[in-house]
Amino acid sequence: MEKGTLYGVSIGPGDPELITVKAMNIISKCKYIATPHTGTGDSLALSIVSQATDLSQKEIMLLEFPMTKDKDILAESHKNAAESIAKVLDEGEDVAMLNLGDVTIFSTFAYTMDQLLEKDYDVEVIPGVTSFCASASKLRIGLTTMNDPLHIIPATGIDLKEALQMPGSKVLMKIGRSMPKLIETLKELNLEDNVYAVENCGLENEKIYNSLDEFDENMGYFTIVVVK
Amino acid sequence: MEKGTLYGVSIGPGDPELITVKAMNIISKCKYIATPHTGTGDSLALSIVSQATDLSQKEIMLLEFPMTKDKDILAESHKNAAESIAKVLDEGEDVAMLNLGDVTIFSTFAYTMDQLLEKDYDVEVIPGVTSFCASASKLRIGLTTMNDPLHIIPATGIDLKEALQMPGSKVLMKIGRSMPKLIETLKELNLEDNVYAVENCGLENEKIYNSLDEFDENMGYFTIVVVK
Repeated sequence: MEKGTLYGVSIGPGDPELITVKAMNIISKCKYIATPHTGTGDSLALSIVSQATDLSQKEIMLLEFPMTKDKDILAESHKNAAESIAKVLDEGEDVAMLNLGDVTIFSTFAYTMDQLLEKDYDVEVIPGVTSFCASASKLRIGLTTMNDPLHIIPATGIDLKEALQMPGSKVLMKIGRSMPKLIETLKELNLEDNVYAVENCGLENEKIYNSLDEFDENMGYFTIVVVK
Repeated sequence: MEKGTLYGVSIGPGDPELITVKAMNIISKCKYIATPHTGTGDSLALSIVSQATDLSQKEIMLLEFPMTKDKDILAESHKNAAESIAKVLDEGEDVAMLNLGDVTIFSTFAYTMDQLLEKDYDVEVIPGVTSFCASASKLRIGLTTMNDPLHIIPATGIDLKEALQMPGSKVLMKIGRSMPKLIETLKELNLEDNVYAVENCGLENEKIYNSLDEFDENMGYFTIVVVK
């Protein structure tokens, strides 16, 4: 039997209208919809897509990706995800795996994809709108100027002070519990001016911050900070 | 009379299916479609959108943005573009200004927007798929790993050697005539491994390069180079 194709489908940052036509078409034709799940509550990706199209006839596959930094647990969860997907592909069915934002930027899909590519499965990747582009749009600012670089920086596990001193604009992602340290570092480097943030971009509880004074140490996981 | 709204509409990298649902809706409701034009030939943005929807009933506004680095000429063209758009907005009509890729990344829209925001016009920005995310999708590679930054680097007007030595992944854009120098610098820094490129991503003449050996000094303006 011919094997199915795995589609890595980017669904954008939250607003269901920011899904591309191609992503909608692929979701529509796949019977199996796989979505990352952290074990607590509903899948955000699934909730966004269900606002754009009817998923009631789909087979939903919840892939467990625990919120941990333990490499063994993570590797195990990627292996399990790849195996569940492979089982469906072996039956000749296609699978659309949903990813928030764009699938090539800080997504778990790359790990799942690599395992399936190694086993010669067909994988197709559908790009989407990143949360940082959507946030900059909401802020009505450009992220780049003529000849300056743009740095996309995960706020954990790096030297924040060094990163914030690079020339050009910076986007801070994956901030989570690093927010107090980020605020402190921005102040220390006198970067108060031209600092912006968007929390939960495109979701119901979206909030826009136009200066560092408005920042709050408890800003949530889905916060993007832009330093121009 | 109530003034119209200017929409900065990102249309993605080339594949008409990579336009978002929101962008399609806005293009559909606006009578005036503005598009950057370099004075030679057709507008690429217009050609992409016309594959996705019928534009025959639209008023097309060609905004002249010469391909030059002369700041005075550029400033003049941004001023002219803002004035043409303001005239239409004053008549109460909305304008959708098309932008390749995402409007917050190396687009001319930011300049036009700033001038109209200063004059208190309503501006709404619609994010889109960037050419670098689309290229990484085509290459089936992730642009980031767990805690590493990603640098989006314009290949002109910067110290290439220094930029390529930053930790994390790099995306090179706006390469144009810098390709020979870029290839030379990649070799000099022994970065031959894990170098990829996509030329004209999503367009008919798309070409994928999986290693530096395949690179060609004459690769075109719409080439994205990824260094992992």
